[in-house]
Amino acid sequence: MSNLKHVAVVGATGAVGVEMLRCLEERGFPVGQLTLLASARSAGKTMKFKGEDVTIKELTADSFAGVDIALFSAGGSISRDFAPHAVKAGAVVVDNSSYFRQDPTVPLVVPEINGADVKNHQGIIANPNCTTAISLMALYPLHQAFGVKRIIASSYQAVSGAGAAGIDELAAELAVVGKDAALGLQTEDVRGALAAAGNDLSNSPWAHPIALNVIPFAGSLKAGGHTSEELKVRDESRKILGISDLKVAASCVRVPVQVAHSLTVHATFANPLTPDEVREVLGQQPTIRVVDEPEKNLYPTPQMVVGQDPTFVGRIRQSLDFPNSIELFVVGDNLRKGAALNTYEIAELVAKEF
Amino acid sequence: MSNLKHVAVVGATGAVGVEMLRCLEERGFPVGQLTLLASARSAGKTMKFKGEDVTIKELTADSFAGVDIALFSAGGSISRDFAPHAVKAGAVVVDNSSYFRQDPTVPLVVPEINGADVKNHQGIIANPNCTTAISLMALYPLHQAFGVKRIIASSYQAVSGAGAAGIDELAAELAVVGKDAALGLQTEDVRGALAAAGNDLSNSPWAHPIALNVIPFAGSLKAGGHTSEELKVRDESRKILGISDLKVAASCVRVPVQVAHSLTVHATFANPLTPDEVREVLGQQPTIRVVDEPEKNLYPTPQMVVGQDPTFVGRIRQSLDFPNSIELFVVGDNLRKGAALNTYEIAELVAKEF
Repeated sequence: MSNLKHVAVVGATGAVGVEMLRCLEERGFPVGQLTLLASARSAGKTMKFKGEDVTIKELTADSFAGVDIALFSAGGSISRDFAPHAVKAGAVVVDNSSYFRQDPTVPLVVPEINGADVKNHQGIIANPNCTTAISLMALYPLHQAFGVKRIIASSYQAVSGAGAAGIDELAAELAVVGKDAALGLQTEDVRGALAAAGNDLSNSPWAHPIALNVIPFAGSLKAGGHTSEELKVRDESRKILGISDLKVAASCVRVPVQVAHSLTVHATFANPLTPDEVREVLGQQPTIRVVDEPEKNLYPTPQMVVGQDPTFVGRIRQSLDFPNSIELFVVGDNLRKGAALNTYEIAELVAKEF
Repeated sequence: MSNLKHVAVVGATGAVGVEMLRCLEERGFPVGQLTLLASARSAGKTMKFKGEDVTIKELTADSFAGVDIALFSAGGSISRDFAPHAVKAGAVVVDNSSYFRQDPTVPLVVPEINGADVKNHQGIIANPNCTTAISLMALYPLHQAFGVKRIIASSYQAVSGAGAAGIDELAAELAVVGKDAALGLQTEDVRGALAAAGNDLSNSPWAHPIALNVIPFAGSLKAGGHTSEELKVRDESRKILGISDLKVAASCVRVPVQVAHSLTVHATFANPLTPDEVREVLGQQPTIRVVDEPEKNLYPTPQMVVGQDPTFVGRIRQSLDFPNSIELFVVGDNLRKGAALNTYEIAELVAKEF
């Protein structure tokens, strides 16, 4: 492989695909050739890369001839069906879907945590779930310092976790119910107002209105009433940290925010730790920003974090009633560190490998 | 005291005051005379009660002559300054502010839990914090059945927790940034758009935009970086449940929802329990609705709960890694069970006492 790489982006037109192109451009990846792949619907359209128009091609089994690195972000079934073709053609796949994440032959990587695992790939490397990656960015340095034992986390997930469709749905709903927000709008009022505006939620990623609401369900329903998102936070945290019996309880909730996922985290460690020690450890990480001056109204919010690469941590407190435990509020851009940026950073490690 | 009571409502024009009047009217409280009290600014205006106009009077030290029961919801300093005058005049005060809640001579009451404590009052009975009352509605029946040991909760609190000003602020912000919600609006973009529309947040209850955002800070800053809201969830839960060493960790977050507070709750008990047992115990409570059929997209959301009296519980799951532990999603109308309704229900108990 030459120094310049032939990069393919599968799902180039999606919310994450667009961010992947931005990473490739902004961070100076050695792109020799760029192939943009999407569904037949988008084929023939163009997207800008370094000021030039690149024509989108339809994704087929034959799309990967000569490709060095293929970044996938088009959903699990596309990864399942097409990643093997990319590998067969000689490409290394970095996959943002959940399809291969629990495959024991596939490394699941956050470069700051287990970047060395990239070397063990057999053609496919998985990028973790957005919520998981963001929470582990804060927890891994603390694990190194104090030994994490238990994590109890609740998420405040942005609508862009459901891609462009999620962003469009929130905007469409707010255009109807946001401009005249009466006290205590009920579901049926909101449904009625949306229906009168021609929106019956049939194109929504959610079964309920998301504007002026929160929805305690993300992903699909799994055994025991847990959601796929909640199980990913548990199972992917275990795999990435390499702690097979880590105790994790997650509750994942969607909120009417466009971009950036937030989490409240209650974490218990093997060793005692203080908020000052937590601030010191996290403050030393180049890709973490500690924003924790509540006396000046300074703590992370999604709007503070949108479009930024670091993971933000604040509201650092000692748990009053739980030994060796702390509370954190963690926010990261779900399209960047939660998806495109981390995928890109894995691709950087792959590029160095050759 | 005759069967018909002279009721005073202090803070009648506020978001909670309005709901108090609705409770007094809808639930058939034996109101013989109604005195509406507010600041000088509102004095002289009228509010409807049972179809009749009632003129609002300015709150003074002399407002309580002949009053049997005074419902206070005008903030802690008003309660501090005026509740003693009401008691001196012979009224029983039911106070929705936090001012007297931790006073050992003042019962802190959720009627379903510790209604008998009303009898121990010395003139003042406190109504609990909204988030606390809502979470305990779900946890108390489970405590009776299984013995609660540890509670770790995160809140998704509606803007009406900050009163009418919170509702107005969200509506004003959405009128500006909701109608054209661009991808990934950042704080400075939102602040700029709001400033251009004449809103510099100086009238907002929050230091940051709440539209399209979440704010991990509710109440005031206390020792150790905890907020007053987070400490209320802990300290009031202990007092209401009568468990002085209950282990509680709370993280309180504001979300852009008008009415109804939600919580994720991770709770650990002395005895084993299953989700089916939890559903059975909660299903027997007249003031709880179990909505837990995620396979039909049925779980509580704030919009489902607005304007309703029961507390809603769903997403009931066994914690995978924690013995004797469950996960819940709990939603209650913060203006009703979280404030006006519970205050009203305490007043009903007081009325029966005479």
